Amino acid sequence: PSRLPGYATHQLGVAGESHRVPCEHRASTVNAWKFPGGLSNPGEDIGDTAVREVFEETGIKSEFKSILSIRQQHQHPGAFGKSDMYIICRLEPSSFNINFCQQECLRCEWMDLDELARTKHATPITSNVAKLLLYGYREGFDKIDITMREFPAVYTGRFYKLYHRELPKSYRNMT
Amino acid sequence: PSRLPGYATHQLGVAGESHRVPCEHRASTVNAWKFPGGLSNPGEDIGDTAVREVFEETGIKSEFKSILSIRQQHQHPGAFGKSDMYIICRLEPSSFNINFCQQECLRCEWMDLDELARTKHATPITSNVAKLLLYGYREGFDKIDITMREFPAVYTGRFYKLYHRELPKSYRNMT
Repeated sequence: PSRLPGYATHQLGVAGESHRVPCEHRASTVNAWKFPGGLSNPGEDIGDTAVREVFEETGIKSEFKSILSIRQQHQHPGAFGKSDMYIICRLEPSSFNINFCQQECLRCEWMDLDELARTKHATPITSNVAKLLLYGYREGFDKIDITMREFPAVYTGRFYKLYHRELPKSYRNMT
Repeated sequence: PSRLPGYATHQLGVAGESHRVPCEHRASTVNAWKFPGGLSNPGEDIGDTAVREVFEETGIKSEFKSILSIRQQHQHPGAFGKSDMYIICRLEPSSFNINFCQQECLRCEWMDLDELARTKHATPITSNVAKLLLYGYREGFDKIDITMREFPAVYTGRFYKLYHRELPKSYRNMT
């Protein structure tokens, strides 16, 4: 089978205290801010890709909290004829210094969410997720989070990860 | 590139009136109910796969409403070495007669959500999603839905679909 990943994973870090997110301005994009991110390695979990790529691109350490948004796109240039899944995660940073590669990125900065939601110099998906984050930051992240639970696989005994809206305990423990 | 889909899509239909969902009992699984579903065709949208597969397997006509749950699983037998994404959708049925292939399925029936959430004869993901649906049915589907919005792609002018929690209008229209 092809070694190319079947889907891409992108991600973002969000600082709880400061309602700011790291954004990069790539040399390859025209005047547009976007979240740091990149492709999953084969067999890598969504959250692990997000944490790894944010660290590689920005030097920021973080922890996976939830999935925020999923995009399915067909015949995207660069997707090698596959449908690509672009998944945006919410991460909680534990370090804040930015250290980026100046050959790939023109700029990489902590951006204010409110500014990012309003600027014209962001991709539509970036400003849309910025609005979602602003809503979560003000009203509670439970309004926007798609959280993760682990389950044992029936045949293999391995664990798999299931992402959905938070389910109240009274329903989870139903038997 | 490989013609194999990078991820699988499964789905379910839910009847608003009757809080019942169609479930099948496949000849290949041991005493376990699961939702009807199958693989995406290349270039097919998630919701279109769900509607098509439910119709092919059960004869039930339906409309896509939302994504309910996403599973990422690695080295699954039958996934050809790829990580597989199994996406469960909420569909609204417009027809209710079940017509299924007796070679693939032993039984295919409308199951009561409450029963499906409690039975031991369902896969863990099926009973978990049944609990999620029961919660949504009782408290409002906005508690569980991951809804879809369309956006224009920056470079190609095509539209793509973005799935996330519902964003209030005041945030959506922010400029």
